[in-house]
Amino acid sequence: MALATDQRSSATRVMERCARLAEFTEEPGHITRTYLSSSMLGLHREVSDWMREAGLEVRVDNAGNIVGRRLSGTRDAKVFTIGSHLDTVPNAGRYDGILGVIVGIEAAGILRHESLPFDLEVVGFSEEEGVRFNMPFIGSRAYAGTFDSSLLSLSDAHGETVADAIRFFGLNPDMIGEAAVSSEDLLGFLEVHIEQGPVLQQRGMPVAAVEHISGQTRLHAVVTGETRHAGTTPMNARHDALAGASEIVLAVERLGIEGAADVMTVGRLVVSPNVPNCVPGSVALTVDIRHAEDARRAKAEAQLMQKAERIATDRGLMFHLTDRRETPCVLCNGDLTDCLAESIAVATEQPAFRHFSGAGHDTMVMAQVTRTAMLFVRCRDGISHNPEESVTIEDVGVAVEATVDFLRRLGRRAS
Amino acid sequence: MALATDQRSSATRVMERCARLAEFTEEPGHITRTYLSSSMLGLHREVSDWMREAGLEVRVDNAGNIVGRRLSGTRDAKVFTIGSHLDTVPNAGRYDGILGVIVGIEAAGILRHESLPFDLEVVGFSEEEGVRFNMPFIGSRAYAGTFDSSLLSLSDAHGETVADAIRFFGLNPDMIGEAAVSSEDLLGFLEVHIEQGPVLQQRGMPVAAVEHISGQTRLHAVVTGETRHAGTTPMNARHDALAGASEIVLAVERLGIEGAADVMTVGRLVVSPNVPNCVPGSVALTVDIRHAEDARRAKAEAQLMQKAERIATDRGLMFHLTDRRETPCVLCNGDLTDCLAESIAVATEQPAFRHFSGAGHDTMVMAQVTRTAMLFVRCRDGISHNPEESVTIEDVGVAVEATVDFLRRLGRRAS
Repeated sequence: MALATDQRSSATRVMERCARLAEFTEEPGHITRTYLSSSMLGLHREVSDWMREAGLEVRVDNAGNIVGRRLSGTRDAKVFTIGSHLDTVPNAGRYDGILGVIVGIEAAGILRHESLPFDLEVVGFSEEEGVRFNMPFIGSRAYAGTFDSSLLSLSDAHGETVADAIRFFGLNPDMIGEAAVSSEDLLGFLEVHIEQGPVLQQRGMPVAAVEHISGQTRLHAVVTGETRHAGTTPMNARHDALAGASEIVLAVERLGIEGAADVMTVGRLVVSPNVPNCVPGSVALTVDIRHAEDARRAKAEAQLMQKAERIATDRGLMFHLTDRRETPCVLCNGDLTDCLAESIAVATEQPAFRHFSGAGHDTMVMAQVTRTAMLFVRCRDGISHNPEESVTIEDVGVAVEATVDFLRRLGRRAS
Repeated sequence: MALATDQRSSATRVMERCARLAEFTEEPGHITRTYLSSSMLGLHREVSDWMREAGLEVRVDNAGNIVGRRLSGTRDAKVFTIGSHLDTVPNAGRYDGILGVIVGIEAAGILRHESLPFDLEVVGFSEEEGVRFNMPFIGSRAYAGTFDSSLLSLSDAHGETVADAIRFFGLNPDMIGEAAVSSEDLLGFLEVHIEQGPVLQQRGMPVAAVEHISGQTRLHAVVTGETRHAGTTPMNARHDALAGASEIVLAVERLGIEGAADVMTVGRLVVSPNVPNCVPGSVALTVDIRHAEDARRAKAEAQLMQKAERIATDRGLMFHLTDRRETPCVLCNGDLTDCLAESIAVATEQPAFRHFSGAGHDTMVMAQVTRTAMLFVRCRDGISHNPEESVTIEDVGVAVEATVDFLRRLGRRAS
């Protein structure tokens, strides 16, 4: 799809800004920018300049979120927020999170001289990836007012706490509560984000409206057999934990392929003692199960547990869980998503593709306090958390146009 | 089987001596005795006392082997050697290797006042396990005269070379060649060793005559797929290296169970990136194949390679070898093994059980220069390389009696 001249100039600016922000890193040669690392300071200077150019008034709250705001001029107007995160995983790409913030600023710039019946905030959340403190969503929790102050005492690998990090950044951890926007004041939240999966590319669609963020079950399990000499232990005298674990890996995959859940994955598997001449004595593994319907996800888990236990029993092995965590499915708001789908249809001249997110996003946190919508942008081969992360200027142009149309459409409805 | 009084007293002494040697360790609380570590010095003092009591003249050669010798009194008599190793793996049991040396000394003691038509040497090899220099059989190679002097410059984890280790032990690495017994002077070699497998226990046999030491193929392979986000990558868009590797693990096991080789094992498997929320991008694994017939072992390897490549192709993965090593099968000498089987039949009052060794032993090195025989002793549950290693006093009594009978029988034949 060819872009109109002003669309192309917008998309070009977004691409250039994403490239510029990739220079702010704590690891030369890679993009690595963890929560409130010093690389975030220079990045904030750039972002605040761009926010001001777009007519936004800038603040940095005490969680380190950078927020650009324009007022509607109407008394008691509610706030609509567009945002995503500015931190990265180690050795990241340049679009995960950042793209959504820059598209938000670009949309605000385009709408600079148009009136809207709501206040508009564009937010760059300080933390979403959970890298530094092994705890994600620090930024959006503070903005949403769901930040639990006990998180301030979490430590990073160097023994620095969240409170220390906030203080070293020149902010005040005791005032982190003031970062919260009142839930009653919020009209809604839109996050623009790369898909981080291959489905839009497979379908030939530049963008999608996200209907839900999948619920997730994470199992940590151990398969226990007997460590034996690989040369002297006959095949019929073995209780090989790895052979049993391999059957479980394939059972997980088969359940996923058969549609027990959207996706099912064994991502981590560790063998012990893990030497060539020993029959493995134990294997630790994780199972990740994601689905839109929490009940269906629970059923997939139960099916897997039954299969795993049968595999273990048949082989004289033990199978037991060492940890189990789950996050329920988060639904985006139907009205906002319909509105976004209409804007996508305008921007793409075809019916909007509706998709879901298998990954977690700030939208999950914002959904606890307001209506949310999410716009996915196609990324090449679904690659993310990787320097190879790539989007096209055409798709970015569509994302900007859909975002601007969405805000105008919302304005017409709200007024 | 009840032991006669003198048998019981012999077996008790062997058990006590194995327990005593377990005290010589470089790691308090565990049995860990690597090549020429200082713990070997005290052990040598004990062993040389026992050798002298048994009427043997003691020397320590420049590879650190301790050798006890009695002469036949006959001019140009050949040498028959009984031996095994005195070093251990880290956190070892008390019988692997040591038992064979102590049984040899006990047999020499019993035969002290009987004449034999050959010289008898009992040797405690200084190194078999390959722990310190990642190179096994240093002791037996020196004794057999197959030691390559380039091995003197191998380094341990602290940067000390084999030559340094020999020098620090008070020996002369430049004279290591003098450790060699001339092949022409050798009549044969007998090694007594715990089975390190469960077969004798399964069959209810105290000992066995070993007919061969299995040939071995060790493959190092990598399965390569694509690392992807576990939440956003649909099941049909994955190239999951771990799922492919799991099929290969099960194919290896199935080939082993079907008898393609005696034993086939995946002992080591390492997943990358090995995080719960990533579809695994690559898996490195080892395959260990052992069998008596080298041609059959080669066929098993070829069958596996074909299956692994088909599994990889069907999944859009790559399978390739990164390393491949093999050791051919070593046959024990038929005459010596028949002679040993007769002695076992006398000692156990039933036909000798003939077995094979799936593990490597000093016998493999000695077989390059002389006729060999090997006597396996039952160990509990096949456990070895582990503090739980256990043998019964009754089985040790049988091993001593069979060894003594074997030497007498050999003497009658040789004279």
